[in-house]
Order: sequence, then C-alpha cells, then structure tokens
Amino acid sequence: MQTPDENELVQKVLTQVLKNNVVDNKQKVGVSRLSSSINGVTEFIGTAPIGDTIGMAIANVDPELLKNLHVDHPYRSIGLLSARTGAGPQILSMDEAVKGTNTEAISVQMPRDTKMGAGHGSLIIIGGDDVSDVRQAVHIGLENVPKHFGDVYNTDAGHLELQYTARASQACNLAFGAPEGKAYGLIAGAPSGIGVVMADVALKAANVEALSFASPAHGTSFSNEGILHISGESGAVRQAVLSAREVGLKLLSQLGGTPTNDYPSYI
Amino acid sequence: MQTPDENELVQKVLTQVLKNNVVDNKQKVGVSRLSSSINGVTEFIGTAPIGDTIGMAIANVDPELLKNLHVDHPYRSIGLLSARTGAGPQILSMDEAVKGTNTEAISVQMPRDTKMGAGHGSLIIIGGDDVSDVRQAVHIGLENVPKHFGDVYNTDAGHLELQYTARASQACNLAFGAPEGKAYGLIAGAPSGIGVVMADVALKAANVEALSFASPAHGTSFSNEGILHISGESGAVRQAVLSAREVGLKLLSQLGGTPTNDYPSYI
Amino acid sequence: MQTPDENELVQKVLTQVLKNNVVDNKQKVGVSRLSSSINGVTEFIGTAPIGDTIGMAIANVDPELLKNLHVDHPYRSIGLLSARTGAGPQILSMDEAVKGTNTEAISVQMPRDTKMGAGHGSLIIIGGDDVSDVRQAVHIGLENVPKHFGDVYNTDAGHLELQYTARASQACNLAFGAPEGKAYGLIAGAPSGIGVVMADVALKAANVEALSFASPAHGTSFSNEGILHISGESGAVRQAVLSAREVGLKLLSQLGGTPTNDYPSYI
Repeated sequence: MQTPDENELVQKVLTQVLKNNVVDNKQKVGVSRLSSSINGVTEFIGTAPIGDTIGMAIANVDPELLKNLHVDHPYRSIGLLSARTGAGPQILSMDEAVKGTNTEAISVQMPRDTKMGAGHGSLIIIGGDDVSDVRQAVHIGLENVPKHFGDVYNTDAGHLELQYTARASQACNLAFGAPEGKAYGLIAGAPSGIGVVMADVALKAANVEALSFASPAHGTSFSNEGILHISGESGAVRQAVLSAREVGLKLLSQLGGTPTNDYPSYI
Repeated sequence: MQTPDENELVQKVLTQVLKNNVVDNKQKVGVSRLSSSINGVTEFIGTAPIGDTIGMAIANVDPELLKNLHVDHPYRSIGLLSARTGAGPQILSMDEAVKGTNTEAISVQMPRDTKMGAGHGSLIIIGGDDVSDVRQAVHIGLENVPKHFGDVYNTDAGHLELQYTARASQACNLAFGAPEGKAYGLIAGAPSGIGVVMADVALKAANVEALSFASPAHGTSFSNEGILHISGESGAVRQAVLSAREVGLKLLSQLGGTPTNDYPSYI
Repeated sequence: MQTPDENELVQKVLTQVLKNNVVDNKQKVGVSRLSSSINGVTEFIGTAPIGDTIGMAIANVDPELLKNLHVDHPYRSIGLLSARTGAGPQILSMDEAVKGTNTEAISVQMPRDTKMGAGHGSLIIIGGDDVSDVRQAVHIGLENVPKHFGDVYNTDAGHLELQYTARASQACNLAFGAPEGKAYGLIAGAPSGIGVVMADVALKAANVEALSFASPAHGTSFSNEGILHISGESGAVRQAVLSAREVGLKLLSQLGGTPTNDYPSYI
C-alpha cells in the first residue's frame, strides 16, 4: 500500500531537484563529533554516527527536575544517551560503559521511534557521584554504538536485531532483567511475527533460559517487533542468537529486499 | 510543516539518482509469494501483496515461548499473520479464515505502525491442534488481505478504513468484541477527528449498536484514528458504513489530495 | 542508519520521475481553506496551513457516540481540532479560543504521530451548549495554529518546541495541569535527552515552578521527547523558555542540519 506521506515526499523531492540545491542538501548530512563542549553548552559530550544518537551530561541536576525524572536512584550528576533509532544497541553500549566506570543506569526508556521504522528509539539515563565518571561512561557508550548496530539488519519491510554479551551488566539488568555476570542475548524481528518464529528457533537451538518475550501489546512501546530475551551459558546463548538470525534473514527477505547491516556483524 | 526526515530522504534519493542504480532499486521491490516453505524454513507460508504482510506457522511451539506469548489458549500449533500496515484488513481476513477451518484466534495485537501513516500494523496469532489446519487458515487469510484493503483510502494527510461483514466470527469477537454470527462494521478515519464525525454520521444513518469507539488515548495503540465498531442487522450496518464513508471521503479531501484505495471497494 | 522505508521511497520517487507527472503531484499539495461547509458536510469548519490540521463541529452529537467518547462533560454540541503533526501548537491555539468563547475543552488526546517525526499529533474536543459558540471557537483555534508553530524548530534528526502564554486558560489546565490565569510555558526537545538538558537549563535560569516533566515512558504517548511544563510569574516563565531554546538549538544542531521554524517565532 502507498503510505499516506509518500506522494508528499515525492512532491518535496521533485521540488528540491528543480531547485538544484543538491549541494545545500549535502551540507545537511549529520556527522559524528566528539567534543568536550559546544560554545557555552558544557552538557554536550558527543554524537554517534548512527541512529541520531547524542550523549550529554549534567554535572549538578536541578532538584526540581530530578524529582520529576522517575529515576531509580537520585544522583547529583547524570549522563544521557538519547537516540531516534535503536534501543538495544545503545543499551548494550551503555552496559559496557557502566561496567567500566563508577556509574549506574537509573532509567531506560524506549520511545516508539526509529523514524519510519518498526522499532524503538532510546533514552538511557545514568547517574554518578562524580561528573567526570559520568562523562567518561557516556563517551564509552557513544564509541560502542556502531559495533552494536553490527547485527541490525534492515529492509524496506522491516528489520532484525541481534545482541549478545558474554557477561551482562547493570544496564541490561535494569532494561531487560538480564542476570548480571551471565551471558545475555537479544533476538528481535519486525514485523513482529518474524520475531515470534525467531524466538521459537532460538529456544529450540540451544539450552537457554527465556527471560521474557516482548510483542506489540506486551513489553514494547507498541513497536512492531517480537523480542526474545535469553540468558544462560555463553556458548548456548550465542548459538541460540546465531540460529535465530539465520532464520530471520530468510523470513525478512520474503517481504522483498536484502537485509543489510550498516556495520560489520560482531556476534 | 516539514517533518524531520524529509531532507534526509531527499538527500538519499538524490544520492541514489547520482548512483544511477535504478535497476538495483527495482529489484528490491517486494513481490507476493505463496510457497510451502523457503530453503529449510518450514514455518514460512506466504506473503500478501500489500501492507508488508507475512504468514507463518509453527507446528510445535516451544513451551517456554508459549508461556511468554500472552495467548488466550495454549495450542501445540500456532499460525501468524503479521503486517507493517493494516490491522482491520488482516483481522477481517483471518476472521473468515478461522470460520472455515478448525482453528481459533488466540491473540490480536496492534502495533503503532503503518510506517509513516497514522494507523496500526498487526500481529494475529491463531491456534489449532493440527498444523495443517493452521497453515490452511493462514493461507486463506493471506488471500483475503487485498479484498479487505478495498475500502482503505489514503492521502498524504491521512486515511479512511471501512470494513463490513454480514456474519462476524471469532477473530472479530476477540479483537473488537463483535457478537459472533451478527453483522459487524468498522469505521475509521485519520486524523482522528475525521473518525469522530464519521462515527456520528454512521450512528445517525441507521439503527445499529455502537460496540465501542476508539481514539488516540482510548483503545488504540496511540494511533491517530477515530474508530467506531458497530453491530446489528446486516442492512443497517452496511448502510451506516456507507454513509460514514461518503462523509469521510469529503472531509479527508479537505486536507489535500484525493483519497485513493489500492484495491476495488468490496462493501 | 537507513530506515526501512527509504529504498522503497527512492524507488517510488524514481518511478514518479520517470512518469514525469510532476504537475499531477503538484495538484496534490494540501492548501488551507476556511469555509462554512463542503457540499452537504455541515460539520466541516476549515483547515490550518500546517500540521494537517482540520477543524469540525457536530451540532447535536449522537448520544451513543457521546457515551463512548470518554469526555469530561457531555455537551449537545462538540467541536474538534485534529492534527497529524503538533499537540502543543493546537492546544495553545484552542486555549486562547475557549478563553474568548462560551466553550470548554472536554478532551485532549495526543496520538504518537507527526508522520515521520519524534512527537505527537492531537485531537482536541471542546463542548458548548450552542453550536455557534463551538464553531467560533474552532475557527479561532485554526487561525491561531500557525502562530503557535513559530517556536517549533525541525531538523532531520529531531525537533524543539517552545510555547508560552502569560495567562493559561482551561485547555492548558486540562492538558498539562497549568494553573488558570497564571503564566505557563512548555519546553520540549527531541530526541528526548535534549529535552532533559533543556529542562535543567530552564529551571536554573529563572524562579519558576515545574508542573511536570514528560519523557518517552512517563506522560507522553511513547514519543521521543523530553517535555517540561512550567508555571509562575510571566517574566520568569518567559526567561526560562528563552534560555532553554538557546541551549536546545545548539544541541539539536550537533546531530546535523539547522533547526528551522516554518513560522516566525512569537515568544
């Protein structure tokens, strides 16, 4: 079906083409940046080159704001990783970041976003007693983001996401109930039915524990994904993830297009 | 207003044009397929030519997955109809399918999707004791989908959806509370205010029962639709649907564009 | 990341280009209109030139519909302002409208929309004893909409929204808990983390009261926004809004593109 906006977009594109402002448009492409601040805005830390991901930190949060932030633990200093596209990649990225710094994830929120896509964006809030720890954690998180997009595969019709860590930390625990210190895997497919079949394949492929299964009406923000969270022995979790990916790639291809990842697979 | 992504899309389009990979893109267009399986993936049943709709079945669901699926009744075999765009069309399609087979709809979920649109996608899970019944039901459902897009009308600004059945079955009952065996009608408009006016016209046009009215904050997944569900005598339900469609087409046109259906009207 | 639809859009665009139906597309562009009715549809009032915003009124609502509308107070006559893109602009516009007419806002709903954007659309229902009052209020609301898009700034990556009124009325009270008669300010940023930093800056910039802070998982419809609602002395509220805007513009720019408003700033 032709989605409502497309004619309007076609129209805008043609207008742009007639204007011949290709150069002007080229200048609009976002670029990754990592700087300690932008003129006067000390909160800015940097951006990741994918997912419209921005990292920021507040050295001393206003108490009125902190009261209204719905965070698990109040901290003087908070860090923010915020993205239009992607929740798993950013959460796994921050999971490694909090592991290596004196910080803690205090809120993980998943807007229904990905621009035109079927999935989530993300807002991850971390806390620390020292803003330098918080800034360092957000730095590390931003640097990890591309790696964790390595097993995100997109087509016009949908996407797959696979994540794996041999040792889950506190962010994965807060976001997905992953037991800390144990291997954790995320298996997602969109449209959501593809995620259901991937989940079935994963659980049959290896002896892993199903932590939960999220779908449009249960545990997602109404995204069109089926998402299985698994835990267990690292080899088994990895095997389950790889088996699900193989089937997911074949299923998603049936809706047209070749599933493509923007960064090399890391699993 | 210019929505955030459009410049980026314009940019990507121009890049593509410069690359001259039109042919390459052409190959990416999704095509409908109905096959018993794809190399090794026995779960695949087929796709519908609209809505990025895919049909699958699992002969023997993993018990761990079944526990986490939030379905009404557990079945050894489940079928899946999953789509990026459209809930009503797929639900009505499966309503006829379960009617004619020894299967039952056990979960109907509506993600906030339709890609850039104002409405829902869908995940419909059916169950049966015999996987061949389940596969047959999904087959029938996929074949019904285009017909049930016949009264979905799109413009750049929004859409209308009308559905009608002289005899609702178990899927419409589970999804919308439609009394089984009685005529059922669905009347939707987006932006949602158009659906409010259509609902008012429908209820004044014929003696029908209002089962419920869904709007962005009540009974939708935050979609931008006003959706009336009606039941009653078949002639009255059909008359109410047709009256609402006439007014809806005029209202939606006021936002620009001509409301267009991709398949012939069936009501 | 390349969002799922883009190749499909590129494909459609190229097809359109080959068809050379530029003129045909041009005719599809929506235009603003303010008319008392369209042939036979007395409910239509008009449209605003932005946000796919349409205004309608029902002189005598069907009681069955009214029962299912989830409105605070039942009225014989209701007015509707409904939009694909924008909640704040339409709510502030209707806030002024109900102030000047004998009407009351009885429902404010925020779908997760803005087409491809990160924010909300809106459905605002007002009630009155006399349909002429209701129609007048919707008229005024439609005319106010462009002004209240004056401090909505968009890029490919996200958006900012600022609203300010020296004297909040009943619509802002119903929608955001703004004390009537006092100054009210709305400060929003997307991706949502930008809204968090803007909120912190606003609360530190002036002595204002934080009414609430909304984020993807708290108080939004899963939009990717951080939204602060403030109240207080008019000079202080305005100062807080302006300080947040300055920082928000710098942060959003870091994701690429120049934040642009479609109408002149009014704050």
